[in-house]
This record gives sequence, structure tokens and C-alpha cells, in this order.
Amino acid sequence: MNPTIIKSVREKTPLIHHLTNQVVMNFTANGLLAFGGAPVMAKAEEEAKDMASIADGLLINIGTLTAKDLDAMILAGKKANEKGIPVVLDPVGVAATTFRTTAVKQILKEVKPTAIKGNAGELAHLVDIPWQTKGVESLGEGNVEDIARSVALEYKTTAVVTGKIDIICTGKSCMENHTGHPILAKVTGAGCLLSSILTACLTTDDPIEEQVLTAVHFYGLAASHAAASPSVNGSGTFIAPFIDALSLEPEQLEGK
Amino acid sequence: MNPTIIKSVREKTPLIHHLTNQVVMNFTANGLLAFGGAPVMAKAEEEAKDMASIADGLLINIGTLTAKDLDAMILAGKKANEKGIPVVLDPVGVAATTFRTTAVKQILKEVKPTAIKGNAGELAHLVDIPWQTKGVESLGEGNVEDIARSVALEYKTTAVVTGKIDIICTGKSCMENHTGHPILAKVTGAGCLLSSILTACLTTDDPIEEQVLTAVHFYGLAASHAAASPSVNGSGTFIAPFIDALSLEPEQLEGK
Amino acid sequence: MNPTIIKSVREKTPLIHHLTNQVVMNFTANGLLAFGGAPVMAKAEEEAKDMASIADGLLINIGTLTAKDLDAMILAGKKANEKGIPVVLDPVGVAATTFRTTAVKQILKEVKPTAIKGNAGELAHLVDIPWQTKGVESLGEGNVEDIARSVALEYKTTAVVTGKIDIICTGKSCMENHTGHPILAKVTGAGCLLSSILTACLTTDDPIEEQVLTAVHFYGLAASHAAASPSVNGSGTFIAPFIDALSLEPEQLEGK
Repeated sequence: MNPTIIKSVREKTPLIHHLTNQVVMNFTANGLLAFGGAPVMAKAEEEAKDMASIADGLLINIGTLTAKDLDAMILAGKKANEKGIPVVLDPVGVAATTFRTTAVKQILKEVKPTAIKGNAGELAHLVDIPWQTKGVESLGEGNVEDIARSVALEYKTTAVVTGKIDIICTGKSCMENHTGHPILAKVTGAGCLLSSILTACLTTDDPIEEQVLTAVHFYGLAASHAAASPSVNGSGTFIAPFIDALSLEPEQLEGK
Repeated sequence: MNPTIIKSVREKTPLIHHLTNQVVMNFTANGLLAFGGAPVMAKAEEEAKDMASIADGLLINIGTLTAKDLDAMILAGKKANEKGIPVVLDPVGVAATTFRTTAVKQILKEVKPTAIKGNAGELAHLVDIPWQTKGVESLGEGNVEDIARSVALEYKTTAVVTGKIDIICTGKSCMENHTGHPILAKVTGAGCLLSSILTACLTTDDPIEEQVLTAVHFYGLAASHAAASPSVNGSGTFIAPFIDALSLEPEQLEGK
Repeated sequence: MNPTIIKSVREKTPLIHHLTNQVVMNFTANGLLAFGGAPVMAKAEEEAKDMASIADGLLINIGTLTAKDLDAMILAGKKANEKGIPVVLDPVGVAATTFRTTAVKQILKEVKPTAIKGNAGELAHLVDIPWQTKGVESLGEGNVEDIARSVALEYKTTAVVTGKIDIICTGKSCMENHTGHPILAKVTGAGCLLSSILTACLTTDDPIEEQVLTAVHFYGLAASHAAASPSVNGSGTFIAPFIDALSLEPEQLEGK
């Protein structure tokens, strides 16, 4: 983790344009605000390009995708590529239906993501590696690094596969992250918020390996910090202190 | 209450497809995750059938219905009927507008719900019994068991009317549930989350009377348990411990 | 602040129809329920008029506007004007894109709002006063009273500009409100919920200056009350006690 990346984000408060799912919008916005970014969530295709034009980063998350959302995602994604701002793709449940699979293929044909982040089942699906999934969850077991490396190479991007151990692969190398907490699996949108924070970290001037590792490492530390709070007795009481923890300094989280 | 139903749900973690309203998606997903189910919320008509095909149960809730949502609900509902998985219909605010009334009629014409769950005003409206409502709330007074029995008989389903006392009627018999807590009336989506948990309970192999009674009884106990927490001073501080309580064992809730 | 306005709202529990953004729906509904109103959130154009017909007040918030939402807003707004119930317009991020600017112009051409509430950047944009904005946030500095007065005069409405100091201008006079807390800037939808509570306060029979001042004054006191709670360590842990505080008596909040 590179704490100066966190500091840079907080000095800049990057405007992150979210084309994300309806389940997690509130949680994502509060989490990114706590972390130090400025969320905006606009979904009309009529303003997709304009909003991307003023943003510092773009997150595309297909969790509750509709055909109209897809149009807006592609318009915003192309504009973001043109402007040179980071784009993160979170292909939620891509393996679950043909509609999602086709939509993600179309996005990847027209938009070049800076990073693709998902669970093993989602990223395996993008490179045709068989993997067991159930709805938006990943159940399979196998070589996650192979998946991440394949996604990075095939889509010329950085792949982030979250799980007990997070695997990050750029085209050149792979890294592991070991922070995190199992309670995150019980909080809807935990992965979606990570994608938002990752997008914010990608807006700094640092090497992408450090940006990605900082985002996932910090996020995991914040989860562990919150989970250790005496007021936490389950996933319900975890959420509020977790949002708080996202606003802390890296040093405060490392100290635990 | 039959605690083995809760245990069965948690062993199976049934995938529940939600076509639900935008107000309650996050709360519902977190609540169902805590209880032991696996929520998926997809709304595009393009994937409605596919998502129902991989699901263990389907919840249809018309709280923020649009014409496009309705198409998706009917496609998913028909697929669920065809597959034989449980379908719960939550006709939120059905009496409030002609659009909702017509939409629910259309759903009930094309989809056979395993259970219909709502407040007295909503279910009274389905069987043309006069009842005072206001927006999505029920204000009337009268014989709720008549309403529940009429709905069960007319739609060949199990009717669940929530209120101070919950009334459950199958075609054969009626039962009452006396757990619950008045604070639930101040939490948006409290009824919607109950529908989600009910759908999860309907995925086990037990008799439907036991499944429904277990869902509403457990839900009410969890509410009372959370409301008794020293950290709860109102509906705001109730929500997090309530989510936690939904993850407890029935025995832990009965003990209070 | 006029405490009888709060009491009147709680006796009446006005039904407030929300055409609001998807990010804040849950938070808004829980906040308004705690305060003493009855939220309904319907977005289909097919029922916009019907829902406005049974409502006591209407809130239009363009935070995640789509073209279809706009149609529903105008239908509901016209019906509300015809019925004589209060309409509040919250032009979220109106300066950010041409789509939003055009949409708000169209709303203001067809619907007469009782009050327009936003930050300085949003309201400045409505009267062509230059002001720095970033997405949905206001960054500029200058004479906020000029902005509020101009909006009030140009649109024959009451303008409410929120900020460190809130400025309220009717066509005749301007007032300041000094309650509030900086943590609200870190909570997504804090302004949106205020608009909802403002709409509820506008449903009483009191002078509009008192209604508006009571809404913003009470809201700020509730925020300060919650922020002073020993369990609050950041924006995450602030939210639940804030919802609770919205249900308190004005006297309980003044006492702090």
C-alpha cells in the first residue's frame, strides 16, 4: 500500500461518474464520500457523455443493467477513453444470463477499461474458463491467478479478482492482497463500493500496480478495523463503522 | 415456528430473484443475506426468464413499478411457474392508482403466486372489499381474516396479511401470528424484506402453512429482539441490529 | 422555528409523493417516516397524475433523471398545481449537463413550484449567475442572498439555498438559518431528505416563511443533536442517530 495515493485522492476529491446498479447506489455514494471522492450517479443516455466529460473517473457496473443503461455506459465509456480518464468495469453476474454476457462483450468491444474487477466466477467467464457461479456469487475453486492473468492479457487491462485472497494482474506481473474480512461477503455491494474506491485511486499519477494494490489493501484493512469494533454483532451493525473506517488515515488502519 | 425450515434455508442459501422496488433494494439484499439467502436483483425484461431459470424462488414487488418492469415480472413469473419454484407477490400500494390495480390484475392473470403478502388495504383491494388506504399504507379496520380467506380462495394461493396481528390463510385454514413490533411500521421496506424472507422459506420441502408461519414468526421475533437492544433509540438505530438479528438462530430469538 | 408546524405535520402525517433519485430513496423514506410524514415513491408516468391526486405534497428531485422520469414529473407537477398542494423542486446537479438544464427549464415552464431548494451552484445556474460547481456539488463563493432573491423573483417562488448558512428568500424578504452541521456534506442525500421534510412542512396552514424556516432549522438541529451522540465517529455512524433525531420534539433538540 502506498499511503500517498490515499492522500492524493483526498486532496483532489476526484469526481467519479457512476453508472452502477440500483441496489448499491446509496452505500457506494456514502462510502466514496467517506473515502474522499465525490460521487455522481447519472444514468440517462442523454447526459452520459457530458457527465463523463466533467468527471475524473468512470465506473461501469452492470448489476441491474437494462438496455438503456447499456447505451449510457458505452457513451460514457467512449468519452472517458477519449479524455484519458480511468474506467473501471465491474461485470456483476456476467455469467448469469445471456443478456449480461452479451452486454459486457459489447462494452469491451467499444470501451477500453483501465481495470476490470470482479469475483473469480465473473472474470473466469470473460475468458471462457469454466467456473461455478450462482446468480451474482462465485462458488468455484481453481487457479485464480490464471483467470486474472488471462483477463489482463486478453483485454489489455489490469484484472482484479476479489476473494479470500485478492489477485491483481497487469499485463506484466501478478500480486496478491491478503487484507480483508469474511463479513464483506454478507454486505451487499461490498465489491461495488471497492470498485468505486478503486476508480478514485486510479485518478492519481502513480503506477497502476500501486494504485490497485493500495485500493484493495486499504479497503480490506478498513473492513477488519470496523469488524473489530465492539459495537459490531453482524453484517447490519458492521456497515456504519465500515463507512467511518474508510475515512481514516492508512496509518490508523495499519496500527490495528 | 419450525426451526428446521430456517436451518434448511441456511444450508441451501436459496437464490431469490427479486423484481422489487428501488426504495428497498439495499435493505432487502442485506436482510436476506443476513437471514441466509442469496439475493439477485435483475430488472431487464431481456434477462427476466434466464434469471428465473437459475433461481430457487421469485419475489415480485410493485412498489416502484414501471411498464417495462411489468413485462419483466410476467416473463419471470411464468418461467418460475413453469419451473415449479415458489413465487411471492407483494402488491405494494395496489389500491393507490389504476396503473397498479391493472398491473396486478395482469400479473395474477398470467402468473400463479405461491403466496400473496400485503397489508389489509392491499389484499382487500384484490377481492373488492372496501378498505381505507393512503398511498402505500393501510388505515382501515374490519375483519382481516375475511380478506385473507377471500384472497386465498379467489387466487388459489396462500394469503399473508401483515398488521398488528398477521393473518395467514391457505385455501383450507387460517392462522394468526402474534410476534412483531410497532417500530417496523416506521422502517421503509419492512414488509418488502419480509416478502423476501418468506420467498426463501418457501424453497424448503415443508408444508406451506409451516413455511409461512415460520417466516412471519421469526421475522417478528427478530424485530422484537433488535428493538430491545440498548443501542436502539428510534427507527434509525433499529435497522442495523435488526439485520443482525435476522442472522440469529431461532432459539436465540425465542429466549428473549 | 415554529414548533406547532412540526406538531401539525405529525398529527396529519401528510402523504408526500416523491419523484426523486435512486441514490437517496431509502434514506429519504426512512427520514420522512421518522419525521412524521408518509412517503410514497412512484415513478411511472402512467400513475404520476393519480398519485399526485391523492398526495398532500409533491417533491421533484432530478438527481438520477431520465427522459421518462421527466414526463412523470411534469404530469405530477401539473396535477399538484391544479389541486393546490405544495410542490418542491430540488434541481440536483442542474448545472452539470445540458440534459439537466433543459429538463429543469421545461419543468419550470410547466410546473409552478412552491419552493425551489438547492445549493448555491444549482440555484445560481437557474438565474444565470456564474458559480463554480463540480458534479452535484457547489464550490463557488459569492453573494448567496442575491442568488436566492433572484430565484424567488424570477420564478415567483420561495428559494432555499443550503450551505454553511442557509438563505431563504420569498418574493418579499430574506432570512438566514444558522443551524446545521458540516457532517451533512458527507452524507449522500442530506439535501434530498431536507427537501422531503420541507415538502411535509409546506402542507400545514402556516405562513410559508415559518414553514421553510422551521424545516431547515429543525433539520439542522437534528443533525447537530445526532452528531453529538457518543456513538458517532464519522458519517457512517451518524446516519442512524440522525434518522432517530428527526423523530424528536423540537424542544428536545433545542435543549442541546
